[in-house]
Amino acid sequence: MQLTASSIPQGFSTFVTNLGIRDTREDFLFVKSDVESVADGVFTQSLFAGSSVTISRENLKDSKAQGIIVISKNANVANGVVGKTDAEEIIQIVSTETGVPANNILIASTGVIGRRYPMEKIRAGLSGIGKKLASADFHLASRAIMTTDNTPKLATRQVGNAKLVGIAKGVGMIEPNMATLLTFFFTDAAIPPDVLRSIFRPTIDKTFNCLSVDTDTSTSDTAIILANGLAGEVQEHEFTRALYEIAHELTLMVARDAEGATKVIEVMVDSASNYAQARRVAKAIVNSPLVKTAVYGADPNWGRVAMAMGKCESAREINPDNVVIRFDDIQLYPNSSNEENLEQLRQVMSKDKVNIHVSLNIGEASATVWGCDLSEGYVDTNSKYST
Amino acid sequence: MQLTASSIPQGFSTFVTNLGIRDTREDFLFVKSDVESVADGVFTQSLFAGSSVTISRENLKDSKAQGIIVISKNANVANGVVGKTDAEEIIQIVSTETGVPANNILIASTGVIGRRYPMEKIRAGLSGIGKKLASADFHLASRAIMTTDNTPKLATRQVGNAKLVGIAKGVGMIEPNMATLLTFFFTDAAIPPDVLRSIFRPTIDKTFNCLSVDTDTSTSDTAIILANGLAGEVQEHEFTRALYEIAHELTLMVARDAEGATKVIEVMVDSASNYAQARRVAKAIVNSPLVKTAVYGADPNWGRVAMAMGKCESAREINPDNVVIRFDDIQLYPNSSNEENLEQLRQVMSKDKVNIHVSLNIGEASATVWGCDLSEGYVDTNSKYST
Repeated sequence: MQLTASSIPQGFSTFVTNLGIRDTREDFLFVKSDVESVADGVFTQSLFAGSSVTISRENLKDSKAQGIIVISKNANVANGVVGKTDAEEIIQIVSTETGVPANNILIASTGVIGRRYPMEKIRAGLSGIGKKLASADFHLASRAIMTTDNTPKLATRQVGNAKLVGIAKGVGMIEPNMATLLTFFFTDAAIPPDVLRSIFRPTIDKTFNCLSVDTDTSTSDTAIILANGLAGEVQEHEFTRALYEIAHELTLMVARDAEGATKVIEVMVDSASNYAQARRVAKAIVNSPLVKTAVYGADPNWGRVAMAMGKCESAREINPDNVVIRFDDIQLYPNSSNEENLEQLRQVMSKDKVNIHVSLNIGEASATVWGCDLSEGYVDTNSKYST
Repeated sequence: MQLTASSIPQGFSTFVTNLGIRDTREDFLFVKSDVESVADGVFTQSLFAGSSVTISRENLKDSKAQGIIVISKNANVANGVVGKTDAEEIIQIVSTETGVPANNILIASTGVIGRRYPMEKIRAGLSGIGKKLASADFHLASRAIMTTDNTPKLATRQVGNAKLVGIAKGVGMIEPNMATLLTFFFTDAAIPPDVLRSIFRPTIDKTFNCLSVDTDTSTSDTAIILANGLAGEVQEHEFTRALYEIAHELTLMVARDAEGATKVIEVMVDSASNYAQARRVAKAIVNSPLVKTAVYGADPNWGRVAMAMGKCESAREINPDNVVIRFDDIQLYPNSSNEENLEQLRQVMSKDKVNIHVSLNIGEASATVWGCDLSEGYVDTNSKYST
């Protein structure tokens, strides 16, 4: 997507470079706001959360930030005390070079686990970055945070006089738990901290947290929003809708670019007794490797949806006799699995987005989640990632 | 493995045939005991449990059985009322033909979900089977229950004067929950029902229920044991050990033959606060697609073990600083991830059994679980299974 100057929020600058962390692609991003911003963040719940996550969590306690560092190609996780001091040194260098107070700088990392940063190279590469910051280039920023991503992920919206831009990365180790891969939102709208918090978390929860690639939860999941206020106030409901639209758009981009994925799977479960139940069932379906491989091969093996629902331990209150299983508008269960249906199903499963719709016929709640198929490409990518 | 007459329990006969359910391979097995046997069974907890499971569960309520029907290549699941009446009709035919009371016949099925049995072919194929039963051929029996299995799975032990034989099938949709794929044990030992029950369930729980291939729980999981008593009483502790050894042997055979698997993964978690915690952490590791693909490629990306542990939500009491991660005897975490270690790790990960050993350093409990790597072969098999 092309960004014009008119779709970029005011008062942000960016710096992107290659520090030689893994190879010659961009691996470092710094986004700076001209002024201190209202900020919120949602992070991985992993036991082995990385140093970047613990530092950013701490620096966000006052709901304020002015800059975000993103390092890609090395997650700086499971490196013990030295991982923390390395991250703190990087923040201190950027603070000294740019004049942004260290406690107003957030940091996020992504890449291999259990390897130290090449600190010599990083110190050399960051020298003088204060002078190299330029007007914000979010397209370049969305490239700099990629690891095995094939495409940069960026979306924008206008809200009143303000602009909102979001970027994301992530193609594997994606089963966010209260947080998500890496995604960053920047706006010049003026929004009070408590309002931002009341909008941001539910939005992430209904978008990125409904996305699964492989049930593996990253140690580095991070979602952050900075609102610097330079464009003044906006209508809260308009901002909420714009933020949801961007987050939803980025979520689908991540699903489409997932490691080895050839198709997006959307699972909608309705008439559940509550949202948690609907989501649990939907996740069981979208995460089933046997559903995912069937979708990959466009194999009309819809029975695997029943199997995947069946393993939801907590779904005991569901009566299989009342369940309806559809792909698009084709009803497969109950009583509809004939040859003609299977042929139609094969065609529906050949599309690049496959929609599975399950009705539980218990209550009123529904949930939609996203995932992708499982192909040989996922295996290929992940059997030789670290080397 | 070759079975000699001396390793076959007394008083069992078998019948194997092809009924044309899917193709021309054997797809029907009936095992009959000359006399009513003490019996126990453990079944899938799936919401969508198949008709075979519900009927067998019912027929086992009195802890007695005399025969087991196994139909492979069609699971008879999600077929509604007609699935139940089809299964009942098959039991009735076998009962009439062989003289075994219908309520003493158990049934198990495996194969595609959501397709009806070809009842015409089945009626024709079962005509006159009473006269075709021959002295037990458990090797043939272990072949007849295969679906996408590459090898038959059979193990035997002698216990005092009695013999014990076990067979199993299963290569995918394997994340047993209180039960397992299909596995059957036959013995001529005399064992009271309450003793058999106290031995059988814990054995299945520590063997098959510690095995994961793909986190997908079958709708047809069934484990049954028949003890016909013809060889008289045995030492309970000897029988318990023999049963465990056979179940463990069959479990490893299933892991080794898993769809697309090239290596077995054994994960041992020790010094946990309790068994449930140890098993939860071990399962998170053995089920992680990123750990599985790294093992497949012998990629020394041990950090994924930390990642997989990190997503155990219920493992909050674990302190990452006290965790030790080893592959065989090579310590990777903490503080041991140098180039030399990584090269040794690559060699260990190239073996056909990869042992991951994690110490939590909290308490005394430990658990061992088994799984397999994830290769392109799993995707290939499962993207075109139903067609």
